[in-house]
Amino acid sequence: MTELQRRRAAAGEELARRKLDAFLVTGLPNVRYLSGFTGSNAMLLLAGGRVTLFTDPRYGIQARQESDCPVKVSRGPLLKDVLALLRRNQTSRLGFERGRISFETYDYLRANAPPGMALEPLAGVVERLRMIKSAEEIALIRESCRTNSRAFEQALRHVRPGIRESELAAEIDYRMRRLGAEGPAFDTIVAFAEHTALPHASPGARQLTPGRVILIDMGATRKGYASDMTRVLILGRAPARVKRLYRAVLEAQLAGIAAVRAGVTAGSVDRAARKALQAQGLAAAFVHSTGHGLGLEIHEAPRLGKRDPTLLEPGMTITVEPGVYLEGVGGIRIEDTVAVTESGCEVLTPTSKELREL
Amino acid sequence: MTELQRRRAAAGEELARRKLDAFLVTGLPNVRYLSGFTGSNAMLLLAGGRVTLFTDPRYGIQARQESDCPVKVSRGPLLKDVLALLRRNQTSRLGFERGRISFETYDYLRANAPPGMALEPLAGVVERLRMIKSAEEIALIRESCRTNSRAFEQALRHVRPGIRESELAAEIDYRMRRLGAEGPAFDTIVAFAEHTALPHASPGARQLTPGRVILIDMGATRKGYASDMTRVLILGRAPARVKRLYRAVLEAQLAGIAAVRAGVTAGSVDRAARKALQAQGLAAAFVHSTGHGLGLEIHEAPRLGKRDPTLLEPGMTITVEPGVYLEGVGGIRIEDTVAVTESGCEVLTPTSKELREL
Repeated sequence: MTELQRRRAAAGEELARRKLDAFLVTGLPNVRYLSGFTGSNAMLLLAGGRVTLFTDPRYGIQARQESDCPVKVSRGPLLKDVLALLRRNQTSRLGFERGRISFETYDYLRANAPPGMALEPLAGVVERLRMIKSAEEIALIRESCRTNSRAFEQALRHVRPGIRESELAAEIDYRMRRLGAEGPAFDTIVAFAEHTALPHASPGARQLTPGRVILIDMGATRKGYASDMTRVLILGRAPARVKRLYRAVLEAQLAGIAAVRAGVTAGSVDRAARKALQAQGLAAAFVHSTGHGLGLEIHEAPRLGKRDPTLLEPGMTITVEPGVYLEGVGGIRIEDTVAVTESGCEVLTPTSKELREL
Repeated sequence: MTELQRRRAAAGEELARRKLDAFLVTGLPNVRYLSGFTGSNAMLLLAGGRVTLFTDPRYGIQARQESDCPVKVSRGPLLKDVLALLRRNQTSRLGFERGRISFETYDYLRANAPPGMALEPLAGVVERLRMIKSAEEIALIRESCRTNSRAFEQALRHVRPGIRESELAAEIDYRMRRLGAEGPAFDTIVAFAEHTALPHASPGARQLTPGRVILIDMGATRKGYASDMTRVLILGRAPARVKRLYRAVLEAQLAGIAAVRAGVTAGSVDRAARKALQAQGLAAAFVHSTGHGLGLEIHEAPRLGKRDPTLLEPGMTITVEPGVYLEGVGGIRIEDTVAVTESGCEVLTPTSKELREL
């Protein structure tokens, strides 16, 4: 059994448990996970042990190259052909992905469903499978982290007074690609000075001047799999104030990593990091959750929020990324990608975490 | 009245016509169009002449910097705060974006709606406004096209035997960024030789050898606005067979452009291009539609499909991009971005269209 077949079998078991005779997969990362197809327009129908991949004529050749599934190339809306097959199969209970289908598509499905066919909204069926990575997937994410960290080092050589945030971001993305990544896993963040106070800053025309903090949040995609890393550096010598803040965030990040292991809740990792910042009076400046799963998508389950009850399991890959943000002053965030193991975690990000003075 | 206010006023008039007292905007490009906010998590509520922008704490500072709307920073799901406001307003009929909301979000909205509030699915309210670009928007798209074409010329200097598709794609994206683009407007396509037969090819490890065709489909994003261009070149001298195919596609592309003017249907432009290929016996090899609108998104209304009844209007920006694809042999596509005018169109893409031999 190939890995794709194993995944589809696992999804099939879940359908059987729910007494569904068909499952329509509309989330593209889920379609990819179950079929291998990477195109931008596709649906996958699992029905009674059989699977059909629907796409449009732009992707006919590619779908047959990438996927082991029978391919139906639709000239019109894919859903029309999906419905024709559901009718032929006399499907009685169809599951669909409630979070991965638009109201519009759902409404078309409902309005044109064969008489007597029930529609069952499903949440997270494929996402739960995807949450636990296979050894092959972890190897891809490890590789993605390595590529990302190499690109980071290469890009740092271009840091000099006067460089713009957007120029450094361009350099980072270019280096990733030259090192074999398909591209960045998300819009690369490069922020200088007080711009670092925006957790999701867009790189702009701001120029670097000596003594300023540099925040870089970057991730590569390799063979579809994401990595995610944040580092903070400084051009010149770090003032004591920056060192203090940095140390507080690093302690929180290390506390978060130390809390990761199979069997604990995602929330407990968040609380460990938050507690460390609280001890420094910085809890209010930590405005987001401690991390998130990642894989074929940059944000996947589990979320590492304060009250997230998900139990960590071996094979989960997550980020640990506490940060503090002081409006008008600046922000510091430190982030690694880690893989959960029985006894703790493997930090997949190879880049060191001391505060680098460039 | 600022452009943002004018847009919101136009949306408000549409709501009044439909007797809605509120409109929930969930599509991010639509939120941006109406509010100026560019973050990745937001909703916008228009209600009785008032507007509220909802986002999460990561974007609190940025939202206030970018948008002229009152901002509500939600600690939990944005929709919870949206519902609270709807309740306070005693909203009776709320419109929502049927194609820009997931079934899951819709279902939450429905289940938690204040008693007596009706939900009205709306299609394309903001998209129809966005379809007609202002002079400022066309200027941004023109600028995006120029940046894109300059990046193309710079990247071509790197074309040599042995270069990989992925390397040339990386070069293209890097050049765009260095020239001031936020990034590529979509995944840049670089395909060599028979790989060009895939209309949406992903750049891979394939190396360029003399005599091979190179297809490049690229677009830049500048201040949010997309451009889109496809060119085909050849390393060395073009064989007669390639020249013939190229000429056929170029004639179709020019026929498409010649058909563009205010008052004709989008479908008539498609048919003009298709007819030119049909005359060469290549109709079956043209597997997609002739073009699409573009602006804040790379694919917008109108679609230039065979039977698309949308009437072209001055201010629409569209692509004209016929192509032929022969499996195992290769493909040729030629694409410009154009702005519709009363009497015809302005071709915004400055790059020449002869078959270049490098």
